[in-house]
Amino acid sequence: MKNAVILFSGGLDSTTCLAYAKSKGFKCHAISFNYGQRHSAELNAAKKIAAHFDADHHIVEIPIAQLGGSALTDTALDVPDYKGDNTIPVTYVPARNTIFLSFALGWAEVLKADDIFIGVSSVDFSGYPDCRPEYIEAFQKLAKLATKTGVEEGKITINTPLMNLSKAETVKLGLSLGVDYGMTVSCYQADSDGKACGVCDSCALRKKGFDEANLADPTPYI
Amino acid sequence: MKNAVILFSGGLDSTTCLAYAKSKGFKCHAISFNYGQRHSAELNAAKKIAAHFDADHHIVEIPIAQLGGSALTDTALDVPDYKGDNTIPVTYVPARNTIFLSFALGWAEVLKADDIFIGVSSVDFSGYPDCRPEYIEAFQKLAKLATKTGVEEGKITINTPLMNLSKAETVKLGLSLGVDYGMTVSCYQADSDGKACGVCDSCALRKKGFDEANLADPTPYI
Repeated sequence: MKNAVILFSGGLDSTTCLAYAKSKGFKCHAISFNYGQRHSAELNAAKKIAAHFDADHHIVEIPIAQLGGSALTDTALDVPDYKGDNTIPVTYVPARNTIFLSFALGWAEVLKADDIFIGVSSVDFSGYPDCRPEYIEAFQKLAKLATKTGVEEGKITINTPLMNLSKAETVKLGLSLGVDYGMTVSCYQADSDGKACGVCDSCALRKKGFDEANLADPTPYI
Repeated sequence: MKNAVILFSGGLDSTTCLAYAKSKGFKCHAISFNYGQRHSAELNAAKKIAAHFDADHHIVEIPIAQLGGSALTDTALDVPDYKGDNTIPVTYVPARNTIFLSFALGWAEVLKADDIFIGVSSVDFSGYPDCRPEYIEAFQKLAKLATKTGVEEGKITINTPLMNLSKAETVKLGLSLGVDYGMTVSCYQADSDGKACGVCDSCALRKKGFDEANLADPTPYI
């Protein structure tokens, strides 16, 4: 079996991504980050889901929160309700996906994994710059230049199976692959049991997915 | 004063880089990483040097060593003596500069710093892929696509003032800027006092610099 590293938060998108990689025959190594996020309940969800999909799971402690500058890591800033405009919201965490992908790249090289999966989408998303296809293309180029494996064998691939899917399409894909979305935590301010607020960007986009797919929303709300 | 983030290990190159950025009028924010490196004495040197240059200094704890795969972080692997051939040595740490630059990018965004300095050189170096100009160019492109500041203002610049300098030229530059190289630690297996082995890649390249510049080597050796 070929190894793959999956960036895995325990939310709707990354869980779909994990199920997708598994369905493609990869031995999955899921990597989660404890970065001082206020919704750290997602890590408990991630543990359970990784076990469910028989994935190797690694939680990396990284002190992004020390840097500040985001409502996701600074409890002095409020998480805003969903607006749906085209501005980048205060929940944006500076350089988050670049930091996450960098660790994934290092781990992939050690594991001799040629594939990294990340569940970003540029359809129903919060406008974060590091979720867009041009960003991923730039990281792909960087990855081949950055590493011994990349330079010597040119093999590393950043896979983004959800990039062009709406949230409804993602949900349908995940259900076809056996995902139980009731286990996943997407909310930016989930309580310690993983129950969701229902009003933040992440909750709003997730709800929209189930609505548009005409499916019951299994999310436990506060 | 404009802010700059300096990747700062406390070694010869990054210290020269810090002195250079300061000479260009930047308010310097130096960032070091405690990543399980066997030569953690460099962090003590970094603290003293940052204070000497009146730089803000931040040490970030990151668990790269958990990933394994390098003689710099795994004491079960020996640090080899300098060979000077064109292979990438076992002291290569997977994705290290990508992880370091990612943190620097996040911190730069929070500080509203438009400049990041990294003391990589592709002249007298160990052949690490993430020290080459094509790698830095790829990270530069990524940085503008990855961040809110990059997308909205297009301002972030990755500065590599040492890229085309030999080690002798770097040493001369640093001396002209007031660097005391006796304070810096470059050795991959420095002892707890920061004393150098004299035989690893890093020591060999450093020695060569002082030799070629016809300068006394102030390095304390074991």
